[in-house]
Amino acid sequence: MDHDVYDLGAVRLQDGITLPSARIAYKTYGTLNAAKDNAILFPTWYSGQHPDVGWIIGPQWALDPARYFIVVANIFGNGISASPSNQPPPFDRMRFPRLTILDNVRLQRRLLTERFGIDVLRAVIGRSMGAQLAFQWGAMFPDKVERILALAGSARTSPHNFVFLQNVRMAITSDPAWQDGEYLAQPALGLARMRLIFDSWGLSQAWYRRGLYRDQGYRTAEDFLNRKVVAPPRDANDFLAQVQTWERADISDNDTHKQDFPAALRAIKACAIVMPSRTDLYFPPEDSEIEVSHMPNAELRVLESVWGHRAAAPGTDAADIAFLDASIRDLLAR
Amino acid sequence: MDHDVYDLGAVRLQDGITLPSARIAYKTYGTLNAAKDNAILFPTWYSGQHPDVGWIIGPQWALDPARYFIVVANIFGNGISASPSNQPPPFDRMRFPRLTILDNVRLQRRLLTERFGIDVLRAVIGRSMGAQLAFQWGAMFPDKVERILALAGSARTSPHNFVFLQNVRMAITSDPAWQDGEYLAQPALGLARMRLIFDSWGLSQAWYRRGLYRDQGYRTAEDFLNRKVVAPPRDANDFLAQVQTWERADISDNDTHKQDFPAALRAIKACAIVMPSRTDLYFPPEDSEIEVSHMPNAELRVLESVWGHRAAAPGTDAADIAFLDASIRDLLAR
Repeated sequence: MDHDVYDLGAVRLQDGITLPSARIAYKTYGTLNAAKDNAILFPTWYSGQHPDVGWIIGPQWALDPARYFIVVANIFGNGISASPSNQPPPFDRMRFPRLTILDNVRLQRRLLTERFGIDVLRAVIGRSMGAQLAFQWGAMFPDKVERILALAGSARTSPHNFVFLQNVRMAITSDPAWQDGEYLAQPALGLARMRLIFDSWGLSQAWYRRGLYRDQGYRTAEDFLNRKVVAPPRDANDFLAQVQTWERADISDNDTHKQDFPAALRAIKACAIVMPSRTDLYFPPEDSEIEVSHMPNAELRVLESVWGHRAAAPGTDAADIAFLDASIRDLLAR
Repeated sequence: MDHDVYDLGAVRLQDGITLPSARIAYKTYGTLNAAKDNAILFPTWYSGQHPDVGWIIGPQWALDPARYFIVVANIFGNGISASPSNQPPPFDRMRFPRLTILDNVRLQRRLLTERFGIDVLRAVIGRSMGAQLAFQWGAMFPDKVERILALAGSARTSPHNFVFLQNVRMAITSDPAWQDGEYLAQPALGLARMRLIFDSWGLSQAWYRRGLYRDQGYRTAEDFLNRKVVAPPRDANDFLAQVQTWERADISDNDTHKQDFPAALRAIKACAIVMPSRTDLYFPPEDSEIEVSHMPNAELRVLESVWGHRAAAPGTDAADIAFLDASIRDLLAR
């Protein structure tokens, strides 16, 4: 096994349901120092798993394991931490409860304190849904995280982002083979339709206008859509569990901030870099701008990319990736 | 019947197929003058039919029937002109051939010349797919149309617009009731899914951010998506026929311009106003800007709307509608 698992035991979720055995899976890089003050948390994103994060961690990157102790935590529902696909009845498949962004954050905090004795994080770095976790960390535990970098994500799922996610839901559940989650084999058609949704929304008009699918070896956008994809083995109900977390994300939706979104943003004391991608169609920079305007210690740093939501993902534009890495470096130097 | 029908007889299409009896349906407003130089053509758009156009024609509008003879032509596949739903075998349902934008334009020209003796049009005004027809009119018949106004449309379907349309295709055909077009009743689920696609892409992030669904009487974006819609009776195969026309639209894809897109744009002598909506997600203003840069006599006039692709549709922002009407007035005064 390339990762570790921590069993949190029975956990009561924000929605009031108790999950009997919540296992959180994680991978660490580097060594926790004696002061326990060099820890960085990097949660996964929608559809991501810890191996997807590792590429930007190493001696050549700002996230250098020689300096930092980096904990890559799998979000719940992602197929490695507790998820519909790995949970025993009665919480398997579509019976898996919704975990909120805050549930994820609280349980990650338990992992860090109980397993490692880490009280204060040097930083939380997240992309997309992972960025939502970073914001939530800052708002809920303002004294426990010194810095956050939120890449291509928001502190609250906007109404339009919610609408986009209904496309994702529709794609998966439109497959008759999905059978309300009781499939025997993965609903391949539904998962292929989900890929169409992400190819449509996850890149940008500019990306397609410039014909960047040609750099991927496809003559036309149509060929690009029809490309053969060796999809990593992921589970349809797991995707839906993650959608459930994402679509209601709101750092103020809890007893502490009582739906006062600006107040939750004001609570984020951490030094923050909020980095939307200029062409992101479902986390557009306008939302980030509003969020940063309420945050006392945040910089809006737009990633001027044509790669839409996928900006600075591995295999995309090298300058975008360098910009992200330099920004992580800047943040950690503050 | 609130409209007229002209039978074009057997027509050979751009793809080489002969449609035995191509009927084109239209509605006219006003009176053709003796010089036959006051005619304006206004084709329908995707999913539109001639009654959908009438709201912006009247004595209070620039399109005043007291001055102009306005011909609202139903595009092929829209359920009124020849379409999958009204064509006898062997060209019924999914066997209905693709008509290109150019096929539409050539057959509209036949309607105008043969039925009315109109040689030169005062203007062609089109929205969305209808704008694609307006561009094509200008490029193919540069001496036969004096002015064009292209609202929220393009001279060529961009790669990203093509990708968007695959979402529309997917939505309709994902319904098991669709049965490859051989349904007995309309595939209601597929049509509802199509509505989700258009609610997601046809408005804008800004529209949802501002909560304009509340002005429509819905508390949340979710309530808006789930609204009860009394959908006009439209046919699934007809929608797919229109997608087929739209997704390959390119004013240069013909023997005259031989895929030389800039050359086709340069051929448009008409005085043109090209009016994208600032927030249109599938006909973004950047594409219009490129097109206008090649047109010898065109003005780019961006409609600064948050209504996305639906900008200046009836029931939307009054200022947007006034801007459109004033622009039509400007164009006709040139």
